[in-house]
Amino acid sequence: MDEVPGSLGTSASFSLRIGQTMFSSASLLFMSLGVEFYSYTAFCYLVTIMGLVIPWSFSLALVDGYSVLLKCPIRQPGILLIIVVGDWVLSTLTLAAACSTASVVDLLLSTHGSFCPPKLCSRYRISAIMAFLSWFLSLASSLFNLWLLPSL
Amino acid sequence: MDEVPGSLGTSASFSLRIGQTMFSSASLLFMSLGVEFYSYTAFCYLVTIMGLVIPWSFSLALVDGYSVLLKCPIRQPGILLIIVVGDWVLSTLTLAAACSTASVVDLLLSTHGSFCPPKLCSRYRISAIMAFLSWFLSLASSLFNLWLLPSL
Repeated sequence: MDEVPGSLGTSASFSLRIGQTMFSSASLLFMSLGVEFYSYTAFCYLVTIMGLVIPWSFSLALVDGYSVLLKCPIRQPGILLIIVVGDWVLSTLTLAAACSTASVVDLLLSTHGSFCPPKLCSRYRISAIMAFLSWFLSLASSLFNLWLLPSL
Repeated sequence: MDEVPGSLGTSASFSLRIGQTMFSSASLLFMSLGVEFYSYTAFCYLVTIMGLVIPWSFSLALVDGYSVLLKCPIRQPGILLIIVVGDWVLSTLTLAAACSTASVVDLLLSTHGSFCPPKLCSRYRISAIMAFLSWFLSLASSLFNLWLLPSL
């Protein structure tokens, strides 16, 4: 069986998971350090989803780290399928949250400038960008694992 | 080769494509019959994406219709791959547009009631729901074709 770079149990996958954890945490922090986030539904949604993505990515990063250290990657189709589906669902939810946040920030900036102090709004915007990056990495993980799946 | 229901050239796929075309057209009409949509970025984005989805789904509906009538489904892996990727990209864009629209409508309704007459806002909301339905059908098409792809 050939090794797919980026699939479960490789060092590339470990980097992807660490990246996901970092970007999601950054998104959560930039959003929740502002005290007004709970007055907008989209921002609450982003915080909820990021609270799901961080433990998922972090635990898979641990699994990848162990696999790389022990040189013994997990190769059960069932587990891989769960990971592919989980990644895919979480990446869809992350994309939805990032788009909602971005559009709300855009609306707050463009038409209701007085509702949003520039400092808070730029923080919300950074949070949305971080969520998009986390979506991208999560999608990459899902695709690499999906690529590996038929060869098992 | 076994037939996957919902894959290219079957009557189930034809129904899916017709559903996508109908929901996207409904979403576009509900949005663009209101004259104020171009003042919000998210609404313009939805109109743009729906303008892409409608011709794509409609032309694939025509292809499916011909295949069903002539009983001669297309089975070239290259064409199928293009359709899977195209469906997937368009469904991602549709999801992004639907989420953005939904969050903007929610924001307009909840905090700035005066900016949005109830009649217009309910129309925007129906447009977002139609976009979500179109996303769902588009995703189903993409998954059915992806399922068929390895067997070719």
